[in-house]
Amino acid sequence: MNISNQQMRFWSPEVRELEPYVPGEQPKIQNLLKLNTNENPYPPSPKVVAAVQAVLADGADALRLYPDPDASALKQAIATQQHVDASQVFVGNGSDEVLAHIFKAFFLQDQPILSPDISYSFYPVYSQFFGVNTKTVPLNEQFEVEVADYQQTNGGIIIANPNAPTSIALSLDKIEQLLQGNPDRVVVIDEAYVDFGAESAVALVNKYENLVVCQTTSKSRSLAGLRVGFAIAQPHLIAALEAVKNSFNSYPIDRFAIAAAVASFEDQAYFAEHCQKVIDCREQLVADLTSVGFKVLPSKANFIFATHPERDAGELATELRAQGIIVRYFNKPRINQYLRITVGTTEQNQRLVDTLKNQIL
Amino acid sequence: MNISNQQMRFWSPEVRELEPYVPGEQPKIQNLLKLNTNENPYPPSPKVVAAVQAVLADGADALRLYPDPDASALKQAIATQQHVDASQVFVGNGSDEVLAHIFKAFFLQDQPILSPDISYSFYPVYSQFFGVNTKTVPLNEQFEVEVADYQQTNGGIIIANPNAPTSIALSLDKIEQLLQGNPDRVVVIDEAYVDFGAESAVALVNKYENLVVCQTTSKSRSLAGLRVGFAIAQPHLIAALEAVKNSFNSYPIDRFAIAAAVASFEDQAYFAEHCQKVIDCREQLVADLTSVGFKVLPSKANFIFATHPERDAGELATELRAQGIIVRYFNKPRINQYLRITVGTTEQNQRLVDTLKNQIL
Repeated sequence: MNISNQQMRFWSPEVRELEPYVPGEQPKIQNLLKLNTNENPYPPSPKVVAAVQAVLADGADALRLYPDPDASALKQAIATQQHVDASQVFVGNGSDEVLAHIFKAFFLQDQPILSPDISYSFYPVYSQFFGVNTKTVPLNEQFEVEVADYQQTNGGIIIANPNAPTSIALSLDKIEQLLQGNPDRVVVIDEAYVDFGAESAVALVNKYENLVVCQTTSKSRSLAGLRVGFAIAQPHLIAALEAVKNSFNSYPIDRFAIAAAVASFEDQAYFAEHCQKVIDCREQLVADLTSVGFKVLPSKANFIFATHPERDAGELATELRAQGIIVRYFNKPRINQYLRITVGTTEQNQRLVDTLKNQIL
Repeated sequence: MNISNQQMRFWSPEVRELEPYVPGEQPKIQNLLKLNTNENPYPPSPKVVAAVQAVLADGADALRLYPDPDASALKQAIATQQHVDASQVFVGNGSDEVLAHIFKAFFLQDQPILSPDISYSFYPVYSQFFGVNTKTVPLNEQFEVEVADYQQTNGGIIIANPNAPTSIALSLDKIEQLLQGNPDRVVVIDEAYVDFGAESAVALVNKYENLVVCQTTSKSRSLAGLRVGFAIAQPHLIAALEAVKNSFNSYPIDRFAIAAAVASFEDQAYFAEHCQKVIDCREQLVADLTSVGFKVLPSKANFIFATHPERDAGELATELRAQGIIVRYFNKPRINQYLRITVGTTEQNQRLVDTLKNQIL
């Protein structure tokens, strides 16, 4: 909208400069194949439905009351599943809120934080929002994180693993090098996509007092509609996140979200089975796209990052859209010849491949 | 917990200084009468249950997908009920999150914002969190807002109406004086409790380009467990809130919360009937407490603020607790001889009055 200078006087000066994050679009079109926001193609655990039904008992009388501000039951369920203590768990309204609190809690330092030049595009938005000084470190030519490049003065480090939108994972060995090389700064590993084949740094939390691992229920647990993210770290770091959260919003997680997420964490068999299904679908999709000429980066996520040597990526995205298939295209330096494609079901992936083969390529 | 100086080096320096908000306790004790957090004693509209059931269809398959980041359906439902345009509505994860965004969007000015000395105790927490310079303006001897006292240089004004914990309402005439006297600053009227008998400033939104009204579904709509708050203002102010929200968290309101809140706003008859029930219970409670010697401030909220000339308020709170009844006591200057008591059902209020009469006074 158009806002006059006269009207702009009401805004805080620093807010006039913000460049907000733009999420992947959520269009409401019939028969659309939506491979643009890395949602899971399978529904959540059936136990989620039962848990929400329980909240609705007695005419949803429970909704009268505030939820537990500490979401203790949820922290305990996460702790059990992750083999940590509940005092090592922080929860928030989606991992986006958890990441926002992380920036405020740890990254307001004199030195700039370090982050890859190609990564989750919300990171620079948080930096601007909180006034965090930030320096990007280029990925290498293969789009991999070079941990040696992070051996420089910094106010903290944040790396997505697997990285987005590249899909490439970093090994725990490399993460340990980062942690050991920066003992006085917090190193954040953002593991939104870790459950699709990468190694989780949660295994390192008890060993490193400077490690924060962030995860979400939106991808591997099929709960994007619910908004539950979490961080795992030693208690002295969790305490900083709690101080920030309790200075911002006492009750960020509602009664439905707590109940549903607890049920999801308690159904480990369903979780493991469906993560493996997505991995299997991914490997088939990579093979199929390769066979029609795409070059696909090695993915440990529920999406792939692919380029076609003979076709412009932006044009491919437009042509796919005309056929009712949406993928994500970033018109940015270094990656403007790539498409980020969410892994769908076997049938969905087949539709994508057939459409490419028969109507576009 | 104890955090060593060594561990504290990881925290952002400004976060080490935060003094977070402390919400009213949520104990899990059998047969407890909880009159401490101003929750509604009646369940939400039955239509809420049906709306949530609809989200659970197909094994809750809808939860796979992110919610609408703009929550357009919810904005439209609020707009219809409030007789404004959807472009004049902002929604957030409880009115606490909406208030936090308001502080960031409008109050980072050179001059201090003004707020009553006795008011919602989250306001100074937001100020510290965002670095907002704040000046408190004393309520008069009757605990009323004196609008003439706000005629001084400021960076914005925030007033709760009815005020909390005093329960006293300000008339729209007085609010218009505030708006007219501060044409270059945003005036925020926080109406968490307005539906229990006060006049809403939403009626003034089209007339004043500097007015922001904040409301919640937690009290009058019995949806504290859900976390949905909203602000109403002209579109040039809503745009500032959207810029802040989209720099912090794209999807703050989950699918259950959107569906349930929409259903609540669409059931105006249930809403009106149950607000009146609470008002009727309040008037009976005030009469009963007055008859056992309390002095009760004139309340337009779903709570009352009461003092007993012969009994120490802190001691009364302790004695009530020993009888399984929790009320809120603030050990703060000017109000440390008052109790804030949530209005319950007829039966709950009777238990409170009987306990006071027969076992404490």
